[in-house]
Amino acid sequence: MTTSTYTVAGMTCSHCVSSVSEEVGAIGGVTNVAVDLPAGVVTVTSSEPIDDAQVRAAVEEAGYTLVD
Amino acid sequence: MTTSTYTVAGMTCSHCVSSVSEEVGAIGGVTNVAVDLPAGVVTVTSSEPIDDAQVRAAVEEAGYTLVD
Repeated sequence: MTTSTYTVAGMTCSHCVSSVSEEVGAIGGVTNVAVDLPAGVVTVTSSEPIDDAQVRAAVEEAGYTLVD
Repeated sequence: MTTSTYTVAGMTCSHCVSSVSEEVGAIGGVTNVAVDLPAGVVTVTSSEPIDDAQVRAAVEEAGYTLVD
């Protein structure tokens, strides 16, 4: 089990959280996505390490930006 | 054709706009809903005058608040 945290810019409401959670949650191996909306922190739990590029792509697909 | 404007608090993103538009648009007689997100102004066009209480209920159903 691997847990990684990312900072995402642009999320303003629970709909945004849902969009990001849905896209990131669709990455293979991801078992849980937790979002701290005020902080913009997305915590991704996966069965094995996932590529940050996949997370970045998923966040962008949802319409938001991963902060480096 | 009747046009009425309302101020809605709490909308922060395009998902919020979609939610409000969907709920208000479902009111009988409503033919168009236009939302100015930064201003929080919702313009409702209907074939005949609609009850403000219906708009209030729709906005609340969407999770937002109509400002008096």
